[in-house]
Amino acid sequence: MQQHGDDYMGYKMYQLIKALYPICRSITGNGVRESLKIIQQIIPINIFEVPSGTKVFDWTVPKEWNIRDAFIMNEAGIKVIDFQKSNLHVVGYSTPVDKYVSLEELQAHLYSIEDMPDAIPYVTSYYSERWGFCLTQNKRNQLQDGKYQVVIDSNLMDGSLTYGEIIIAGSLEKEIFLSTYICHPSMANNELSGPAVTTLLVDWLLKEKRKYTYRIVFIPETIGSLTYLSKNLETMKRNIIAGFNVTCVGDNRAYSFMPSRYGNTLADKVALNIMKHRCPSFNKYSFLQRGSDERQYCSPGADLPVVSIMRSKYGEYPEYHTSLDNMEFITPEALYDSYALLRSCIEAIENNAKYKVACIGEPQLGKRGLYPNLSTKESGYMVRDMMNFLTYADGTNDLIDISNIIGIPIEALLPIIEKLAANNLIECVD
Amino acid sequence: MQQHGDDYMGYKMYQLIKALYPICRSITGNGVRESLKIIQQIIPINIFEVPSGTKVFDWTVPKEWNIRDAFIMNEAGIKVIDFQKSNLHVVGYSTPVDKYVSLEELQAHLYSIEDMPDAIPYVTSYYSERWGFCLTQNKRNQLQDGKYQVVIDSNLMDGSLTYGEIIIAGSLEKEIFLSTYICHPSMANNELSGPAVTTLLVDWLLKEKRKYTYRIVFIPETIGSLTYLSKNLETMKRNIIAGFNVTCVGDNRAYSFMPSRYGNTLADKVALNIMKHRCPSFNKYSFLQRGSDERQYCSPGADLPVVSIMRSKYGEYPEYHTSLDNMEFITPEALYDSYALLRSCIEAIENNAKYKVACIGEPQLGKRGLYPNLSTKESGYMVRDMMNFLTYADGTNDLIDISNIIGIPIEALLPIIEKLAANNLIECVD
Amino acid sequence: MQQHGDDYMGYKMYQLIKALYPICRSITGNGVRESLKIIQQIIPINIFEVPSGTKVFDWTVPKEWNIRDAFIMNEAGIKVIDFQKSNLHVVGYSTPVDKYVSLEELQAHLYSIEDMPDAIPYVTSYYSERWGFCLTQNKRNQLQDGKYQVVIDSNLMDGSLTYGEIIIAGSLEKEIFLSTYICHPSMANNELSGPAVTTLLVDWLLKEKRKYTYRIVFIPETIGSLTYLSKNLETMKRNIIAGFNVTCVGDNRAYSFMPSRYGNTLADKVALNIMKHRCPSFNKYSFLQRGSDERQYCSPGADLPVVSIMRSKYGEYPEYHTSLDNMEFITPEALYDSYALLRSCIEAIENNAKYKVACIGEPQLGKRGLYPNLSTKESGYMVRDMMNFLTYADGTNDLIDISNIIGIPIEALLPIIEKLAANNLIECVD
Repeated sequence: MQQHGDDYMGYKMYQLIKALYPICRSITGNGVRESLKIIQQIIPINIFEVPSGTKVFDWTVPKEWNIRDAFIMNEAGIKVIDFQKSNLHVVGYSTPVDKYVSLEELQAHLYSIEDMPDAIPYVTSYYSERWGFCLTQNKRNQLQDGKYQVVIDSNLMDGSLTYGEIIIAGSLEKEIFLSTYICHPSMANNELSGPAVTTLLVDWLLKEKRKYTYRIVFIPETIGSLTYLSKNLETMKRNIIAGFNVTCVGDNRAYSFMPSRYGNTLADKVALNIMKHRCPSFNKYSFLQRGSDERQYCSPGADLPVVSIMRSKYGEYPEYHTSLDNMEFITPEALYDSYALLRSCIEAIENNAKYKVACIGEPQLGKRGLYPNLSTKESGYMVRDMMNFLTYADGTNDLIDISNIIGIPIEALLPIIEKLAANNLIECVD
Repeated sequence: MQQHGDDYMGYKMYQLIKALYPICRSITGNGVRESLKIIQQIIPINIFEVPSGTKVFDWTVPKEWNIRDAFIMNEAGIKVIDFQKSNLHVVGYSTPVDKYVSLEELQAHLYSIEDMPDAIPYVTSYYSERWGFCLTQNKRNQLQDGKYQVVIDSNLMDGSLTYGEIIIAGSLEKEIFLSTYICHPSMANNELSGPAVTTLLVDWLLKEKRKYTYRIVFIPETIGSLTYLSKNLETMKRNIIAGFNVTCVGDNRAYSFMPSRYGNTLADKVALNIMKHRCPSFNKYSFLQRGSDERQYCSPGADLPVVSIMRSKYGEYPEYHTSLDNMEFITPEALYDSYALLRSCIEAIENNAKYKVACIGEPQLGKRGLYPNLSTKESGYMVRDMMNFLTYADGTNDLIDISNIIGIPIEALLPIIEKLAANNLIECVD
Repeated sequence: MQQHGDDYMGYKMYQLIKALYPICRSITGNGVRESLKIIQQIIPINIFEVPSGTKVFDWTVPKEWNIRDAFIMNEAGIKVIDFQKSNLHVVGYSTPVDKYVSLEELQAHLYSIEDMPDAIPYVTSYYSERWGFCLTQNKRNQLQDGKYQVVIDSNLMDGSLTYGEIIIAGSLEKEIFLSTYICHPSMANNELSGPAVTTLLVDWLLKEKRKYTYRIVFIPETIGSLTYLSKNLETMKRNIIAGFNVTCVGDNRAYSFMPSRYGNTLADKVALNIMKHRCPSFNKYSFLQRGSDERQYCSPGADLPVVSIMRSKYGEYPEYHTSLDNMEFITPEALYDSYALLRSCIEAIENNAKYKVACIGEPQLGKRGLYPNLSTKESGYMVRDMMNFLTYADGTNDLIDISNIIGIPIEALLPIIEKLAANNLIECVD
């Protein structure tokens, strides 16, 4: 068995997701800690705790929420809704409750989706205290009049917000940034695909010396990115040259792209170049359709060069934020392909530079054995690509620019650059 | 009755046009003076006289032309053409004449439109002395052989060119400029709609304190704008930030837009933004199709930021420069809508500024009551628009830019700005 | 007979091509010398020799190749292939050979085109020593088994590379550059149309005083342009403002355009303007499809503003590089039209300047007799074009810019400029 083959990588990510899936995560609490510890078994992330009440820009780290059990029991003593069967059944951050209510009273605390009668919706109420249950429309329709015992054995108290971070030092202080969120209960594409792909990318990054430093974080969405930003803003603004918010990378539908605020950063440039060649029919969204941590990273004042390469974008697929975003919705193959695409972006940035041809006029490739003696179609293309590369290697274009101008993927240019450099025909310029 | 309602405003403009309609105006003469005095009864304009012979750039203010009567009488003593019935019957600036001519001689002095047999054309000869009569093709066809007495009781002598001006001082020296022309005889859309809408705009501007100073002129076209420019060029170039040539704003056909010379001024920017939302199917003309005072205001050396927002553009509708451009061709509703559109442009400029969000990361709207407790579609849009506004309120975009980027009309952003400012979430930057 | 009429010019070029056609040219050798001497009978070019072995940038001037005769003779003593019948029969730069070979051995040295059974292909091997024959596929199919005598009476020895040059001094040091290549044996469109059109352009340029200096070269392709560049780089970079590589200008199919490396030079600008009006359906190629001396002139470090205006582009027509690119493929009319188009480009550059109107506001054309008394459609267009020209003659646009903005061909603007200058209404600015 090829231990590091593509199949194995996809399988490894899928298995990691499977292990994380049952845990009840929220933006704070033991679910996040438990999840980060499972990831820590694969990559050496550091785990940080930020106390409730800490000011983070315009926000405050909330109280910590934990839950042990919850159910709705009918008069016959049957649990008609049981948190142990799905942690989506409880509205996130529900305050504790233990009382008997009529069906009518209960209805005001129930959430379901009429149009998707088999899906349990995912609902939270982080910043306004309430309790509630989520259930399928089908189950809701079956509820009979009568008294129900509602129990939510949760607590909301001062504690802390938990996140994971790993910095992988490179030759340069300049950084590439990966951010993924870990704050949703049992959902696969929107959320666990992100931490799984990010974990394997870190695993790969740790294996060899890199030009750039890498900053990777596993954080709760929104309040987590705000918290992380508020603690690291100066360094991040100084060093980060490109960043990727890794989310919704697990299903096998079309790719999606979320640009940065103005769509003009190195991250946008590299992602668009790679996606144009790898998945040309991807959906390009506007920043007006943003919805994840780019809302913070790309906000005025933060201004970080962060984009998202996704499969089905959050908010745009029917299964989003329901129990149908489950282990069947994602595949090992899709996870691997997303992983490979992000890796290509990183490799493109690592190899990105402005190149300059060393002579005036075309170089004579023939005397260096770079011009084929036997002319085949493939060798012809190789020469054409090489000459086109040299033509625009005039010191003003970087590798991505040249790839865009001559229409050749960066990965096809890398061996050409190697040959040209070995023959002293090009040099890097600053 | 709602005195300042939309219906009343449209009616008021229509009535003003009705009062001005019978007067025989030309580029000089008592018709202009009489018209300006009627306008003076509504708004306190100052009336200026510039003597014949005054050099204005490459031109010279012409002699003053006045006319008392004119007719063509046949042998039976019947006035077949009578200036008292329509002042369009006489070629503008016709020299005096009183003689008997044959039909053949007469024909050389007659103007009609074969394709529009019911229309009297509007013809002038300001800079080359001649006399002539305009009439419908139908009437012309009925003329019998014989002698005709032709009488034009006009005079052309040293006098002056007359125009009206009002300056409404604001907090700033910087000016918004409105120009409209008053030099055509009885025609409604191309010409009187312009002075009427401008008069009501001045009336509105006078009612409250404004940030900008307003310069408004009622002038004869071409020679009037040249004259005004030559007297005020330095001040106008220093102060005017946006200007509108108000013409052809009375009929209820599609809107038209005439840009400035390069289409890149604040006037262009605001007009295009407002029109995109208010009348998206407007006709956008090229400056090559110009034909009114933008020819002078936007000329090299003047370089003023002047555009025109029109309904049916001069030269582009069949009734143009004929007796069919009459009181039936315009409507109170159309006048009001044009007025309101120009007012929106002015309000947009008055409110235009570069805004900057006061925090890093998204602000927490919820703690300020700006995030809806009860989520409705409308409140959802309000939040989305507010967050989108804040996202691009980064100190580099002005209000019009932000409106363009996020696709929300300026008038929908004004209440959002008010709320955000009240919560100290945004500030203006220079 | 109108000696300098269009027909005569086309005929003259066609006759020159006819005289040059039979000569066996290559990148070096007597064929080039002989050809340049024929051209010298029409225009006073200087002929230069650059010794074999001279370093030119990354290349070296090769040995000189000459050939007297060549044939393949079958056992019956019949020359089945005879250089005397077509100089395309021998692979260019073939080493000498005189031996008997089997048909099988011979086949490895034969070149034909299966899909074009009547065409002799054009093949060369400048930089790797070999011998070979080119023939039609039909002829090849007829070859019988047996012994063949193959004779190539050529030699390859130290000598020189030959090129022609003429500099026509103008009032300014700044130069317009024409380059054409002279290194192919008997082919008409791709190659001889270029030298013929260039010769007549030089003839025309010599006849009157010019603002710009003209540098015109007749060189072998690639190695010749590299050689010429290496000897003149500094002067060329300092002085050349626009250049044209004159090639493939003889057939009467659609026009083609090859831009410079970034398509943003004066040469691109003028060519696109002229072609838009003269041959609007021309094919615009990308620089990625380059294939002639722009590869050197526009290379990084050379960075010259050189483009090609062509009819059927090299490599894009079936007859290219075969015996079918012959005297029937080109026509006197096509040659003349190409010549005229290039001449228009040159005249446009000679007349190109930034113009500035002398007054503020529109000038009064009437008092200068520039405004028609009798309004006809043509005079109306003339006035409209004149006013549009003046409107954009603001000192920031050159003649080509104005032509592009107002949509009027440069040749239609030249008489307008003359009238305006005569009336002191415009001046040139730097």
